[in-house]
Amino acid sequence: MEEKILSFLKETVGEENVTTDLIDMLSYATDASEYTHRPDVAVWPTTTEQVSAIMKMANEEGIPVTPRGAATNLSGLCVPLKGGIVLDLGRMNKILEVSIPDRLTVVQPGVVYMQLDDELAPLGFAFPPDPASGKAATIGGNVATNAGGVKGAKYGTTKDYVMGLEVVLADGRILRTGSRTQKWVSGFDLVHIFVGSEGTLGVITEITLKLSPRPTVTATALATFDKLSDAGRAVTAIMEAGAQPSVLEIVEKNCLRAINQNTDLGLPEVAAILLVETDGATEDQCQTELDKIIGIFKANKAGEVRKAKSAEEAEALWAARKSAFAVIARINNTVEAEDTTVPISKIADLLDFIDEVSKKYNLAIPTVGHAGDGNMHPHFSWDRTNPEETARVQKAKAELYAKAVELGGTLTGEHGIGKGKAPYMHLEHSDVAMDVMRSLKKMFDPKNILNPGKMALEG
Amino acid sequence: MEEKILSFLKETVGEENVTTDLIDMLSYATDASEYTHRPDVAVWPTTTEQVSAIMKMANEEGIPVTPRGAATNLSGLCVPLKGGIVLDLGRMNKILEVSIPDRLTVVQPGVVYMQLDDELAPLGFAFPPDPASGKAATIGGNVATNAGGVKGAKYGTTKDYVMGLEVVLADGRILRTGSRTQKWVSGFDLVHIFVGSEGTLGVITEITLKLSPRPTVTATALATFDKLSDAGRAVTAIMEAGAQPSVLEIVEKNCLRAINQNTDLGLPEVAAILLVETDGATEDQCQTELDKIIGIFKANKAGEVRKAKSAEEAEALWAARKSAFAVIARINNTVEAEDTTVPISKIADLLDFIDEVSKKYNLAIPTVGHAGDGNMHPHFSWDRTNPEETARVQKAKAELYAKAVELGGTLTGEHGIGKGKAPYMHLEHSDVAMDVMRSLKKMFDPKNILNPGKMALEG
Repeated sequence: MEEKILSFLKETVGEENVTTDLIDMLSYATDASEYTHRPDVAVWPTTTEQVSAIMKMANEEGIPVTPRGAATNLSGLCVPLKGGIVLDLGRMNKILEVSIPDRLTVVQPGVVYMQLDDELAPLGFAFPPDPASGKAATIGGNVATNAGGVKGAKYGTTKDYVMGLEVVLADGRILRTGSRTQKWVSGFDLVHIFVGSEGTLGVITEITLKLSPRPTVTATALATFDKLSDAGRAVTAIMEAGAQPSVLEIVEKNCLRAINQNTDLGLPEVAAILLVETDGATEDQCQTELDKIIGIFKANKAGEVRKAKSAEEAEALWAARKSAFAVIARINNTVEAEDTTVPISKIADLLDFIDEVSKKYNLAIPTVGHAGDGNMHPHFSWDRTNPEETARVQKAKAELYAKAVELGGTLTGEHGIGKGKAPYMHLEHSDVAMDVMRSLKKMFDPKNILNPGKMALEG
Repeated sequence: MEEKILSFLKETVGEENVTTDLIDMLSYATDASEYTHRPDVAVWPTTTEQVSAIMKMANEEGIPVTPRGAATNLSGLCVPLKGGIVLDLGRMNKILEVSIPDRLTVVQPGVVYMQLDDELAPLGFAFPPDPASGKAATIGGNVATNAGGVKGAKYGTTKDYVMGLEVVLADGRILRTGSRTQKWVSGFDLVHIFVGSEGTLGVITEITLKLSPRPTVTATALATFDKLSDAGRAVTAIMEAGAQPSVLEIVEKNCLRAINQNTDLGLPEVAAILLVETDGATEDQCQTELDKIIGIFKANKAGEVRKAKSAEEAEALWAARKSAFAVIARINNTVEAEDTTVPISKIADLLDFIDEVSKKYNLAIPTVGHAGDGNMHPHFSWDRTNPEETARVQKAKAELYAKAVELGGTLTGEHGIGKGKAPYMHLEHSDVAMDVMRSLKKMFDPKNILNPGKMALEG
């Protein structure tokens, strides 16, 4: 990186907010994925004006800029593939406003999900879509990736809560769009162009989020199924009954076996278990909804059905689901959690297919998922030092993506495209759709400086 | 219109689906607004391929095309200001699929809201954002205008339910975007670019909508307030309490007076009444929520509080709200319902301001509104044959729009920009935002053939 650029950055944000130290460059080369590429410099801006000045300069000089939150994503979304500047927004971490009467909050992008949740909880409100990484993930990252989580079935995803944004465009101009009102139809919806755009269209510097009343009571139950098709039918029947579980998770047999082999949880090694949680404002409301769902489990040949009678019992029922990732991660030197998502009625078909692929390629693919919204997490666990096994994993993944699309589903329900799924975009998107996405990129970032190399935007 | 163009249209859609009759051109010159401009020809396409062929030709020839549903909008959104072709999508009116397990429906754009609702009701499901015009309005129009309605506070607006779209672009290419999955982060969100774009970016030819379980029970109450500020405080307190009314409507004194002067309803002429409805799956759930809200009414100096004990009593409580528009429309030869929307905590401030403006310009501006989402409907009622009075109305409106923006609100919460509010876009949107909107228009429609003359997109 040229000295004059470094000097400009130091003048703009202060010397203490710029680093080129090797140890920092190594940290900023990675996210929670396998991908890695070092930036030339990392900068911690603290104001929108600083971000604007940096973008203006970078655009003039043609220097790549990769915005970054907590980098908890799993698909290389914020790995600076072309080097240049990493914009770490972690020091823009203020909750600027919480207005309960207006049911909104205004935050800077570096606010951590849990920091916001801790602020909202005593007020009886929430921003519901909490990703599994909520203890570390930032709200800016949640918006840039349209983060999901376990509560998607009832509460949707981040996109359903973003009311307004301030975004610094590639050329440094500051765009304020959206509104503080619950209804808004004033011109084009520019807000949702940026939600899920993975830092490729602009740098989000302020976010206005809609808040929801926080449920005060939950109820939990678990059911075992000896046949996967029965579990699938139970999920379908829950949807048909108009039930609204706040959580409906599935853990299938390969995952149960993997957990048993590596813990002393002693889980039943059935075809699948379904874990359900209902929530609401009253105990009665939660229990009524839960009993309705338990009735559906039983009508669809559930084996054992356990209902939690206390918070401790609920925690015990969650054990299988919550331990899955950590257990699978210990089995081998590499684990990658996919987020293949299908229409809800196709979950059993997808799980059957994953089982077939697992056998075909002799791979462990333990799977857990959000049955309430069709978002499955097949975990590929293997030895990356073995090129032959790695090749099998790649083949299995390609088949999985193609199958998801064939079932009317998508490559990615919540992890994003980034680098990891860029080569597969054509499976899901027509030439017209890719053309439109590339035109949009060109419109917002004609010099391709914002997080370049992602989402197959370069054709 | 040149003969070769007419021939092409007749060949494409069949002679019976093309008209240039004067009577038809007069009908297609208007919507539910005051604006009027005749097209040269109207066409009823019945397939996506026909729409594609027409757009390809129109783009090559540079002929304006204005897509149209039931034309129930109030701001001139589908008046063909530059003539050319009106694409009436009313004959693409099939419900293609209802999948309750997947919680979605796929419809053509000409399906009427109520037609869809009648199909969904027996299944126990709904597409909740029902506009007041739901008996006539089409789903394509709802999506193109991001339609709202009385249930926005609890159920959001159309944008919250659109999962996928098929859109014919200005040059005739067919774009399929979005998904049949409840979670989806595969590339840019192109879906929401078209939601609320008022037919200026593409022609929507197929829509995939998310469905919600249909509430089976409702409960209704009404409270009177002698001071507007008390009604405002009650609304704020309802928001703070985490209550979720399905409907929370306000009718203020000028409106109550207008209704009394023109009906024998004998409403209390207080500062304002609040009408509340709760809904849910059980009677207990509805009544608990309603009682909580009634408690808040009483704590905020409500005068009379009436709770409906039957469906008939509920209907009677609704009388003031439901009769408002029809009554106001009879007072004078012109009525225009604005949809000024502010953050919920600013409703009382806005109503106070409307009262001031009403006195300043000696105009009747009776107002009802959706207090639960900040969306007010001040009704301008006047004699359009009187130029002096019309000038006062224009001045009053301009002051109203500026005040809404000053209060952190918007020009339009649910009616859209169209022609009516295009001159005021600059009040709400910065030069940067307008630039981005115009770039987007240029990207999708470089020859400016799609619904030209709207939304201040021409600079």
